[in-house]
Amino acid sequence: MRCRDRRRWAARSVWTAGPPWCTPQAVAGLGPRRPRRAKRGGSDMTTIGLLHPGEMGSMVGAAVRSGGSRVLWAGEGRSAATRKRATDAGLEDAGSLAALVRASEVIVSVCPPAAAAEQAEQVAKLRFAGTYVDGNAVSPATAREIGGIIEKGGATFVDGGIIGPPPVKPGTTRLYLSGKSAERMAALLTAGPLAAIVVPGGPGAASTVKMAYASWTKGSAALLLASCALAAAEGVEESLVREWKISQPELSARAESAAKGNSRKAWRFIGEMEEIAATFAAAGLPDDFHKGAAEIYQRMAIYKEGPAPSFADVLRALTPRRPA
Amino acid sequence: MRCRDRRRWAARSVWTAGPPWCTPQAVAGLGPRRPRRAKRGGSDMTTIGLLHPGEMGSMVGAAVRSGGSRVLWAGEGRSAATRKRATDAGLEDAGSLAALVRASEVIVSVCPPAAAAEQAEQVAKLRFAGTYVDGNAVSPATAREIGGIIEKGGATFVDGGIIGPPPVKPGTTRLYLSGKSAERMAALLTAGPLAAIVVPGGPGAASTVKMAYASWTKGSAALLLASCALAAAEGVEESLVREWKISQPELSARAESAAKGNSRKAWRFIGEMEEIAATFAAAGLPDDFHKGAAEIYQRMAIYKEGPAPSFADVLRALTPRRPA
Repeated sequence: MRCRDRRRWAARSVWTAGPPWCTPQAVAGLGPRRPRRAKRGGSDMTTIGLLHPGEMGSMVGAAVRSGGSRVLWAGEGRSAATRKRATDAGLEDAGSLAALVRASEVIVSVCPPAAAAEQAEQVAKLRFAGTYVDGNAVSPATAREIGGIIEKGGATFVDGGIIGPPPVKPGTTRLYLSGKSAERMAALLTAGPLAAIVVPGGPGAASTVKMAYASWTKGSAALLLASCALAAAEGVEESLVREWKISQPELSARAESAAKGNSRKAWRFIGEMEEIAATFAAAGLPDDFHKGAAEIYQRMAIYKEGPAPSFADVLRALTPRRPA
Repeated sequence: MRCRDRRRWAARSVWTAGPPWCTPQAVAGLGPRRPRRAKRGGSDMTTIGLLHPGEMGSMVGAAVRSGGSRVLWAGEGRSAATRKRATDAGLEDAGSLAALVRASEVIVSVCPPAAAAEQAEQVAKLRFAGTYVDGNAVSPATAREIGGIIEKGGATFVDGGIIGPPPVKPGTTRLYLSGKSAERMAALLTAGPLAAIVVPGGPGAASTVKMAYASWTKGSAALLLASCALAAAEGVEESLVREWKISQPELSARAESAAKGNSRKAWRFIGEMEEIAATFAAAGLPDDFHKGAAEIYQRMAIYKEGPAPSFADVLRALTPRRPA
């Protein structure tokens, strides 16, 4: 590499040499100021409807509630497991979706990506006129489609995407928000262990951050499991693992952790991988990576219920249809 | 996770808890004993033909030569750059391919994957009757096809795959070998900074180790660059990088290094990604990941010559055809 090239590489770039304020510490303080904590039951308390209290949604609800908001959910027709999560999180059951829509100033949608648009349709049909935050892992195109549905119904739309595990410990989880009312929603939803961060660029921008982030985390986990499944199916796993011990010492543990951490959740990742594939295609990038990842998670979807599989079980499940 | 499941995960597995001898130190000593170093010019010196002295091939040739073998190359019709590499590596020019075939007891093929079968055809046509080691990044099916070509011509076939950079420093590079004469070839080719290691399982097994290994290293590098290209094309790279600084602190540097390290070599990775895709399909795994990776490296192939591109240049090259 010539000197001139070396200088080009060394040039400051957003990727490796962000401005001084771009540090984890600075970023943690980047969110808008937390709103004054309202006295519970006081007139300045915001009522937020949460759809729905799944593993992520219930903890988002609990976090927002800890910031002083009243958080409702709609228990009608929901499972006992969902009811337990909602109750444990201190959420109030509004009963029907219609009752939740009537009582809420803000609705936050946290559901599997494939259900996100249908969820918005239902809310729009009930003439919700507050602010609707879609926090789901959908493509920017799907997010904008949801925005159209919501605004046609008379509400304000804010695009969102959640990065990190269900917010229990501080510093783990961020809700990215974009669109006209993103600042206002970030002030309301930054609460307890949840940090809400505004992304410039209007509706779709927050979803793009989520898509780009998960394209690596969930896409690379699927790829790594596929590499292991190949070695196992062809009987060369001992040689591969010995080579990894020398040159990629973290990979064996990372692969086992990808299987262990994702096998029960794989069923929900299928739709997310499809949204990422669509996002890549719309940006002119190959959508193949995440079509492959969707197929890997599809094969792992059998582990939604029942005992956790061993690593070898997962690898076998990934190569069930070996051609002769 | 229940107790029984925890026990299953904790069970010893080849992936995380190999036998005690399965450590880098032990593995480094796993290769067969180095053959007695022949006196240069002595009658027990093996003559090895190397096809061809590219960046990898020339260093493999130099390593093998340092073990006491005589190493030939075929200079006829080759470029000045190849001649310089061969000369610097101390290889002897046999002149034509026919002369190299006549003079060599062993031929080692190190060339781009797309050229591997054609290379074997040429050697077989010249009635080579020694041992032919195919060290190329090809699928096990292609390796076995090459084996068929070679054995029909009257020679013995050994399947191979190289993992690591061109062998200059000890401990960086391993030549995996499989097939009937793999032990004998490992003894001959373990030399200087190159370690040759036998993979059980016959022809195709060594190539499978290489395919599984590169499926992660080169596949994940392509995926990471695609994730960055998405963020850059959609204008959310600052938000992504800030999130990475918090939760994936190594990724920005890893992405820049994937662009920097691979941009000049991307043209050679296209064929390798296609071989990996074929290997996955034959094992019943999705071939999409590496079709996507082939497309990424195809778009980077413009950097084969000329000055090294900046990271931003590479990302722009990956999204040239954004749909309107």
